[in-house]
Amino acid sequence: MSTDVVALLRAEFGERVDVRPSALEAVRADKSGHSAPGLPLAVVHAASVADVQATLRIASATRTPVVPRGAGTGLAGGANTGGGEISLSVRGMDRVLEVRPDDLLAVVEPGILNADLNALLEPHGVWWAPDPASRAISTVGGNIATGAGGLLCAKYGVVRDAVLGVDLVLADGRLLRLGHRSVKGVTGLDLTSLVIGSEGTLGVVVGATLKLRRLVEGERVTLTALFDGVRAAAVASAAVTASGAQPAIMELMDATSLAAVHRLLSLPAPPPGAAQLTVQTDGPVAATEARAIADVLRAAGGTVTVAADAAEGEALLAIRRAMHPAMETLGTTLIEDVSVPRSALPDMFDEIARIERQFGLAIPAVAHAGDGNLHPNFVFEGPEVPPVVWDAAEELFRAALALGGTLTGEHGIGVLKRRWLADELGDDQWRLQRDIARVFDPLGILNPGKVFAP
Amino acid sequence: MSTDVVALLRAEFGERVDVRPSALEAVRADKSGHSAPGLPLAVVHAASVADVQATLRIASATRTPVVPRGAGTGLAGGANTGGGEISLSVRGMDRVLEVRPDDLLAVVEPGILNADLNALLEPHGVWWAPDPASRAISTVGGNIATGAGGLLCAKYGVVRDAVLGVDLVLADGRLLRLGHRSVKGVTGLDLTSLVIGSEGTLGVVVGATLKLRRLVEGERVTLTALFDGVRAAAVASAAVTASGAQPAIMELMDATSLAAVHRLLSLPAPPPGAAQLTVQTDGPVAATEARAIADVLRAAGGTVTVAADAAEGEALLAIRRAMHPAMETLGTTLIEDVSVPRSALPDMFDEIARIERQFGLAIPAVAHAGDGNLHPNFVFEGPEVPPVVWDAAEELFRAALALGGTLTGEHGIGVLKRRWLADELGDDQWRLQRDIARVFDPLGILNPGKVFAP
Repeated sequence: MSTDVVALLRAEFGERVDVRPSALEAVRADKSGHSAPGLPLAVVHAASVADVQATLRIASATRTPVVPRGAGTGLAGGANTGGGEISLSVRGMDRVLEVRPDDLLAVVEPGILNADLNALLEPHGVWWAPDPASRAISTVGGNIATGAGGLLCAKYGVVRDAVLGVDLVLADGRLLRLGHRSVKGVTGLDLTSLVIGSEGTLGVVVGATLKLRRLVEGERVTLTALFDGVRAAAVASAAVTASGAQPAIMELMDATSLAAVHRLLSLPAPPPGAAQLTVQTDGPVAATEARAIADVLRAAGGTVTVAADAAEGEALLAIRRAMHPAMETLGTTLIEDVSVPRSALPDMFDEIARIERQFGLAIPAVAHAGDGNLHPNFVFEGPEVPPVVWDAAEELFRAALALGGTLTGEHGIGVLKRRWLADELGDDQWRLQRDIARVFDPLGILNPGKVFAP
Repeated sequence: MSTDVVALLRAEFGERVDVRPSALEAVRADKSGHSAPGLPLAVVHAASVADVQATLRIASATRTPVVPRGAGTGLAGGANTGGGEISLSVRGMDRVLEVRPDDLLAVVEPGILNADLNALLEPHGVWWAPDPASRAISTVGGNIATGAGGLLCAKYGVVRDAVLGVDLVLADGRLLRLGHRSVKGVTGLDLTSLVIGSEGTLGVVVGATLKLRRLVEGERVTLTALFDGVRAAAVASAAVTASGAQPAIMELMDATSLAAVHRLLSLPAPPPGAAQLTVQTDGPVAATEARAIADVLRAAGGTVTVAADAAEGEALLAIRRAMHPAMETLGTTLIEDVSVPRSALPDMFDEIARIERQFGLAIPAVAHAGDGNLHPNFVFEGPEVPPVVWDAAEELFRAALALGGTLTGEHGIGVLKRRWLADELGDDQWRLQRDIARVFDPLGILNPGKVFAP
C-alpha cells in the first residue's frame, strides 16, 4: 500500500513529492533533537490550499497518517514524521494576502516566518506580537499549531490573543473557515481557539487572520540586575510584577546559564553563583517605569545596570538570547517548559535545585519571569535522553503541577510530554479531549501518536 | 415522568426546588423579552458544585432537559426555560474564593455580579475588564456563557481574553477543571476558550479563574463630537482607529437614538439629524491622546466638547448609557448585535438606512465604534416580534456578513439567531460544532433547542 500512496501523491503533485532519503531523514526530527522511528513515505511540498486538500483526500482514502510541518523548529517532537507517514509541508505557502492597518488585521498563509511577516508589516506601522525565541526561523502556522509564546507575553499576549480566525483543512480534505474579522464575535463555538495549540491533531492550518497591534511608540529602556543567587532574582521578579509595573520583557538566567553564556561570548565571568534579571520597558512611560523597576530591584538586593542607549540595551539582551547556543556547548539538551503562577517562581527554582541534588544532575534554567514560564535545560551526552533525565523531568512536572502550574507553557505536548498529559488533565478530560479530536478526524490519520497517544 | 423528576429533585434539595407558578413563569424569559413556550418543571437554586452535579445526575437519569441560568439578563433567549425543562440557577453561588493581586487572578463562583466583583477587587488595586452594559445586573458566569463584550473591548479585550480557566459540570454530573493559573499554558486542547460563549450547551460553569488587570492609573478624559449625520460620525470613528489612537471607550449614537435619549433625560433637543460620538481616554497619556483624537474628530467635521472634569465626563457618558431606557419609551425592542471590521462601520450604517427604507421601519442604532459592534434596535408594538422585523433583521445579518462581519458580537445565538447560524458557519462547520457539543452532552439534555437547534 505504501507504494500506492506515493504513486497517488506523485500522480497529483509530480516533483513536489520528495522521496530522497536526505529529505525523508530531515523530517523525522524537529529542534527537540528527538527523532521519530522509521523512515517517512514522502514529503509533500504544498503550494496551495488545494494541494493540502488533495493530500488529505489521498491520505483518507488510503488511511495514511499525515504529519503537518512548518519550519520544523518545534521543541516537543510534534512535527516529527516516522515510518509509514506523509510529511505535509506548508512552508512554501508563505504569502501575505492582505494587510489592513485600519482594521489591525492581516491575512496570511501558514508558511511565512514570524520575523519575515513583521518585516513586511513594519512599513504599515503595525506588528504581530507573538515572539517566540525562534521567531527568525519559525512559521506563523507553527506558532498557531503550538500556541507559541515568547518573551513579550505578559505585556503583549500569547498567540491565542493574536489570532482572529484560521482556515483549516480537515482530515477528509474539506476546508473550514473558522473565526471572524471583527474585534468581537461569538457566533457558535470558538473553534479558532480550539485549533490554536492543537499541534496538528484537528486539521491543517492553511491560512490565518491575525490580530495586529500598532508599533509601540517611544523609547525602550533596558536594564539588568545581578543577584547573589537564583532565588533572590526570582523573588525580585515577583516583586516587580506585584509592584504593578509592566515590563515588556523580564528574563531570568540562573548562575549556570549566565556563566555558560559569558564563556560563549568571551565576556568576563560573572560573580560565582550570580543570577541575572534582564528587563526592558517600552511605550510612552518607558523611562519612568524603568526607574521604578530599578528601585524595586535594588530594594530586593540587585546590582542594577541601566543601558545608556538602544545599542547597549540590545547587547544586554543578546546575553539572554545566546542561551541556546551556550547550552549546546555543554552537551545535548532537553529543554523543558513548565509554567507557574508568577508568585510561585521562587518556589519553583527551589524545586529545580532540589531535583538537581536528588538526581545528581545540572539543570541550568532560564525563565520568562514576567509570565512565570521556565525553561530548565537537562544537559546530557549522546543523542538519546537517558532514563535518569526523564525521571528528573517527571519530578519537575509534578513540582510544577503542585505549585498550580502546567506541564508546558509554550512548546506543546508533541511526543515528549504525552506520557504526562493525563496527569495534568485528569482521565475524564483527557478522554473528552481525545473524543473531540476524533470529531475532526474520525479515522485518526492526523498526526497520530502525538499529544493524545496513550 | 415529570412528577418523578420534581420528586427526585425535592428529595435531594428540599426547599431549594421552586415550583411556584410565579417562579416558573419568571425563568421562561430573559431580557430579550422573548419567552419559551410552556411552563418549566422546576427551578433548582444550586448552592454548591455538588448541587449542580446532583441536578445533572437526576436530569441524565431521567433524560430531562436542563437550562443553566445566572441573572437572566441575556438578550438572545439562551437561558429561557420552557415546558418539561429544569431551570438550574447558579445565581446563589456568588462567592469570591481567592484574590491574588500578585498573580493578577481571582477564583470566583459563577453567580457573582460583574459589578459586585469589581467592587470587591478595587481595594486590591485590580479589576476584571469585561464590562457589558449589563454589568450591574449580570453574572460572571453569564458573561462567560455568552462570551460577553461591552464598551472597553477594543482597548481591554473581551471575556475570552480575561479567563484563565473554568470548572465545568458535564451533562452526566462529572466535574472537569479546565485551563490553568499561569499566564501561559498549552497543555492539550484549549477547552476553556471552547466553553466561553458556548451558552450552556457544553456544561454548567460552576467556577472560574479570572485574569485581572491593575487598576488604570491617571485621569480619564471624556469628550463628545456632534456630526451632521451617522455616516459622518462613523467615518470619523474609523479615522480615530486608523490614526493609531486607542480610546478606552468610543461610542456612536445615531440621530434617532440621540434624540430619544435627550427627550428621556429632558435635555435640549440635539440638532435635527445629528449623530454623536462619545470618547473616553485613560491611562498615563490620556490628556495627550484626547487632544489628538479631538483633532481627528474636528478634521472629520465634528463639533467637539471636552468635559471639564470627571463629573462632566460621567454626565456625557450617561447619555449613551440611557439608550436602553430611551428605547423602551418608544415601544418593544429587538436589540440586534452585528459586528463588522472597523473600517466597514460607515458602510454598515448605510445598509441600516437602506433596510429602514426597504422595510418601512425605524431602526435606531448605537455602536461600540471602537470595535465595530453595532446594536440596531428594531422597535415595534406588542409582545411578539412581527414577521416584517424578522425579515429586516435577516437582511441586516446578510449585510453584516457581506461586509466581513458576524451575526453576533457579544449577545450570542440563543434561540433568536439559531435560524441564521449555518448561514455564517457553513453547513460543514455547523455540523462539526454540533457534533463537538454531543461529545460533552451525548443525551442532548443541556440547553436543547438553543444555538444548534435546526
